[in-house]
Amino acid sequence: MKLLEQRIREEADVIGADILKVDMFLNHQIDVKLLGEIGKEFYRLYSDAHINKILTVEASGIGIACITAQYFSVPVVFAKKGSNSNIGNELFTSEVFSFTKGTNSVIGVSRKYLNSNDNILIIDDFLANGSALTGLIDIVKQSGAALAGAGIVIEKGFQPGGRLIRESGVRIESLAVIKSMDGGSIIFG
Amino acid sequence: MKLLEQRIREEADVIGADILKVDMFLNHQIDVKLLGEIGKEFYRLYSDAHINKILTVEASGIGIACITAQYFSVPVVFAKKGSNSNIGNELFTSEVFSFTKGTNSVIGVSRKYLNSNDNILIIDDFLANGSALTGLIDIVKQSGAALAGAGIVIEKGFQPGGRLIRESGVRIESLAVIKSMDGGSIIFG
Repeated sequence: MKLLEQRIREEADVIGADILKVDMFLNHQIDVKLLGEIGKEFYRLYSDAHINKILTVEASGIGIACITAQYFSVPVVFAKKGSNSNIGNELFTSEVFSFTKGTNSVIGVSRKYLNSNDNILIIDDFLANGSALTGLIDIVKQSGAALAGAGIVIEKGFQPGGRLIRESGVRIESLAVIKSMDGGSIIFG
Repeated sequence: MKLLEQRIREEADVIGADILKVDMFLNHQIDVKLLGEIGKEFYRLYSDAHINKILTVEASGIGIACITAQYFSVPVVFAKKGSNSNIGNELFTSEVFSFTKGTNSVIGVSRKYLNSNDNILIIDDFLANGSALTGLIDIVKQSGAALAGAGIVIEKGFQPGGRLIRESGVRIESLAVIKSMDGGSIIFG
């Protein structure tokens, strides 16, 4: 998606070898007009997939998921983070390893909001090692829902998550794929 | 807002004396069509206020803020939670007491995304004791921005936050105000 690549090129900060900061338009300050274009593009890609619900994870996935859901006319469900979630029969949960923090945490979705009649599109801001996406896919499987695919705003193609999850048979559509950002110079793939 | 009151009446769960669960349409599963009506109503209330930015706090404020921001054509900034935020010169921070958890936590906004040229509308899902809203107002004051007011989806009018903050001179517009929910029966005020 050219508009998104342009915003990344012009505004994103590359920190070290693998951190891309886009908190000026995507995950701290949010450009809702850009989210509108992102939502339209996800709808174009998945309009024939009979999605009835969008699943994301707090916090930075929520805005993207809500704006995208307007185009599909479906509700959003967001997984809650935190090992202090009431774990038990009421929730589908999955353990997610955070590479930035070096810790495991649990994400959970109430059993009331996912079931075997659902056909889910997962939406998230980033795909790198794939830990959050794998956790969300695990929750969809536990619920018995069908998974139509995932829509990712920015994929770091030089990290293994996207390849591994696609190889497992999941459809992933990433609107911008970064092939490399060595020396701070971003190359899209 | 009649549509919102109707949804609360039909779907919300009252737990104990003061917990109102609306996670079926507002803060776990999200009805984005309802958020559209909520956003329109906030726009009607604040359309003359020259808002240039919407401020909220993660996680459940984000969806409401993003959908509302579409009507104002302005960006959203969300305060991040967690005492592990990089506290220091880069952030405006405020301490927020959680009555449900009984603990203090810190919310923070990067200094890059709020400044004295801004005219802020704060959006949040709930107002009860007013701790989160007070923290957001504190952050707006630190930044030197003007505060046009706050837009709250559900105010628990039987808890003191709304009264105290209005008395301090802040405009608050709440789309549903619950006067009492004794015995599980919700009365709007």
